Amino acid sequence: MGWGDLGAFGEPSKETPNLDQMASEGMLFLDFYTANPLCSPSRAALLTGRLPIRNGFYTTNAHARNAYTPQDIVGGIPDSELLLPELLKKAGYINKIIGKWHLGHRPQFHPLKHGFDEWFGSPNCHFGPYDNRELPNIPVYRDWEMIGRYYEDFKIDLKTGEANLTQIYLQEALDFISRQQASQQPFFLYWAIDATHAPVYASKHFLGTSQRGLYGDAVREIDDSVGKILKHLQKLGISENTFVFFTSDNGAALISAPKQGGSNGRFLCGKQTTFEGGMREPAIAWWPGHIPAGEVSHQLGNVMDLFTTSLSLAGLQPPSDRQIDGIDLLPAILQGRLIDRPIFYYRGNEMMAVRVGLYKAHYWTWSNSWEEYGKGIDFCPGQNVSGVTTHTQEEHTTLPLLFHLGRDPGEKYPLSFASAEYQGAMERISGVVQQHKETMVPGEPQLNVCDKAVMNWSPPGCEKLGKCLKPPKSDPKKCFWPH
Amino acid sequence: MGWGDLGAFGEPSKETPNLDQMASEGMLFLDFYTANPLCSPSRAALLTGRLPIRNGFYTTNAHARNAYTPQDIVGGIPDSELLLPELLKKAGYINKIIGKWHLGHRPQFHPLKHGFDEWFGSPNCHFGPYDNRELPNIPVYRDWEMIGRYYEDFKIDLKTGEANLTQIYLQEALDFISRQQASQQPFFLYWAIDATHAPVYASKHFLGTSQRGLYGDAVREIDDSVGKILKHLQKLGISENTFVFFTSDNGAALISAPKQGGSNGRFLCGKQTTFEGGMREPAIAWWPGHIPAGEVSHQLGNVMDLFTTSLSLAGLQPPSDRQIDGIDLLPAILQGRLIDRPIFYYRGNEMMAVRVGLYKAHYWTWSNSWEEYGKGIDFCPGQNVSGVTTHTQEEHTTLPLLFHLGRDPGEKYPLSFASAEYQGAMERISGVVQQHKETMVPGEPQLNVCDKAVMNWSPPGCEKLGKCLKPPKSDPKKCFWPH
Repeated sequence: MGWGDLGAFGEPSKETPNLDQMASEGMLFLDFYTANPLCSPSRAALLTGRLPIRNGFYTTNAHARNAYTPQDIVGGIPDSELLLPELLKKAGYINKIIGKWHLGHRPQFHPLKHGFDEWFGSPNCHFGPYDNRELPNIPVYRDWEMIGRYYEDFKIDLKTGEANLTQIYLQEALDFISRQQASQQPFFLYWAIDATHAPVYASKHFLGTSQRGLYGDAVREIDDSVGKILKHLQKLGISENTFVFFTSDNGAALISAPKQGGSNGRFLCGKQTTFEGGMREPAIAWWPGHIPAGEVSHQLGNVMDLFTTSLSLAGLQPPSDRQIDGIDLLPAILQGRLIDRPIFYYRGNEMMAVRVGLYKAHYWTWSNSWEEYGKGIDFCPGQNVSGVTTHTQEEHTTLPLLFHLGRDPGEKYPLSFASAEYQGAMERISGVVQQHKETMVPGEPQLNVCDKAVMNWSPPGCEKLGKCLKPPKSDPKKCFWPH
Repeated sequence: MGWGDLGAFGEPSKETPNLDQMASEGMLFLDFYTANPLCSPSRAALLTGRLPIRNGFYTTNAHARNAYTPQDIVGGIPDSELLLPELLKKAGYINKIIGKWHLGHRPQFHPLKHGFDEWFGSPNCHFGPYDNRELPNIPVYRDWEMIGRYYEDFKIDLKTGEANLTQIYLQEALDFISRQQASQQPFFLYWAIDATHAPVYASKHFLGTSQRGLYGDAVREIDDSVGKILKHLQKLGISENTFVFFTSDNGAALISAPKQGGSNGRFLCGKQTTFEGGMREPAIAWWPGHIPAGEVSHQLGNVMDLFTTSLSLAGLQPPSDRQIDGIDLLPAILQGRLIDRPIFYYRGNEMMAVRVGLYKAHYWTWSNSWEEYGKGIDFCPGQNVSGVTTHTQEEHTTLPLLFHLGRDPGEKYPLSFASAEYQGAMERISGVVQQHKETMVPGEPQLNVCDKAVMNWSPPGCEKLGKCLKPPKSDPKKCFWPH
């Protein structure tokens, strides 16, 4: 999903009454970011409170490349990383992940080995393969074992877009919440649905109900589900004791537009890029009785803050033996304070840009290569800002491109290098960047090596289902990350 | 102002708490249009309920040109046109215009000759001239006579952007409303403020208060003023008896960005164009006790509807001796009904596009000429949709470019001509266009002739102030309209 996909954020069809109501009962964040313009690194950052460059969710195979965890990835979340559920366990929480994990699918990366008590969902994303022949289809797990595969046991009709997965995920969530409430058990639910990721899907009841086509149908179903989850919390009488946060892991993928693409509002470009469209996200905090209704926050926030904020809510301290990038948002949420902090925009191993206050400095610009662009892969369709949406990697480290995101949210008008405003803002930003770089200790890159042998050929439980496939011989190679 | 300039429409700074509250207490229109991508024709349409091609607010000097009423325009609103205040008078209304008139400044076009009882404001827009030497500065009128001129008696500091005009206009509005309430007099107030038109201005109290720079300061002051007007109505106990509508006369002028430019959200291009960014507008209806709070409408609306709707509210019928394009929106506003009606997008004498349902067909595309574009005049900065934002006038009358505004609000992906969807939608649209063209009786074009002699040299009242200037000899010429 992108920043502009909700009615509360100006989507012109305004078809998200439940999320809009969640915002009107809670706090709407207008300057909230993901930690990476791509799924896996962003999710690793959410659960570790650390930038992907620290927790290893990046590649050094080439400069500034987006990388993730397809089936042939060898790496995953390192054991040395401390995940939010591992820490919450110490405070007696029961933790469940529903949906997409995406932090590695080899045995050592299993979510139940990293603090989760329950899992219903898939280790990788639900796009291809679709026939389970040449390559294994993505498995769906319940806890330790697979219970089927996408496109075989869990259908997604690629023609009509029909799939009832969001309904299954919703039911899983309601059941889990009911059980925890019944046993008076503190809980953490990571509800990681993926219906708006291409191939986009929605269940029959929602198909054709949106002005926006199939993508809008998927958004409507998610919106409806969030409404049901919030109502469930209220019905169970635990809404005033449950903190809920809604956000996304990257900007809308404009390459999937118009049929399956979302909206980043008026922001530049989308998923895969470090422009605002790639990383600024819809974000809503909800906690009746604690967050004053209808508040709006300009706090610069990041998915990594959900790590630190959740620990704070549970009365826990973040780990002190490592750099944590997430901050505790409770002062911003409960007292409306504004905490000064930068936002870093990484692409793989490169810090592409940084935001301090309303200023954003680009040290590198790139959308994608001319070669890809020539093939019709366009992360900025209909948009072209000369010298900004570049198709070669352009270095600006000595004289960064500077934008004022208040006057120019669309990153169209770089400030004049000679202006006093440029000088003043860059002085402040340079200090922030210098400190960031000097103290940076990159983690071991996890997304460098690919091997067809590690794909989901024979996930645990496959033998009971007769669904084990025979892996090929191991042949580890550098993964190829084109953008 | 543009569609994306209010918080309720997703402006990322969300600095319009009063207009957002107006929306949450009233009805937000997401598919509301102006009748023209430029000021004068749009205002003529608002007050006559008729397309500019009918009421004469267009030019035939060249094909598809935007024209308006600068100081040297010879034409203006024809006596044969029936304006909303003229008609409301019959139902006993007292009518006042505060702010920009823009329907011609020669004696016969004076607003008090066209139904208004009171006027405080200027006949033309407040941009140049600024020194009152070579050419006269724009006069400011109270009722029949001028009381000063812009930049002389009514200051706008072009360096700081400071001007207290919006405060004066606000006070005029509050006073007028108080007087009518005191005398139990039905009234029509046309509050036509212009602070967001370049050169953008705000009063001292608002300067520097916006994340968005001076333009945002102006928006904040307008927002604050609207809040004060609504509160005034409530304080006087007449809010449940007063229908209030907020909208704009064209999309944000992106050529003024980033320093003085507003936002059209994710829509394509801006003012001067017939893309969505040029003509889709923010729109809010407010009438406590009648409009259910927090409603959202997808009714296709147009500023011309305010003519017919206002007559309906006053218990009057629209004139039956001429074609009226505005429809009565009350069924949509009070009963949530959706009325099927097309939206026509004209540029001068050409119907460039038409919207029927969620489909928009472009019969002509043009942003501006290569010549202008080469001089840096860009109505679509940072945007470029191949074959759509063309710099030559491109005719598509035999095979219109068709967009689905639900899936593709940004007009980036024309539907395939060969698709069944294209065929079906165009069949419906063609019928609408054919009927429109067959019954079209264009008015006498008012915006063809310019003459320096007709400028505001000696407006009525100038002699009392010693502010009469000597006009040059009459030399009528075809006006030059470059885009």
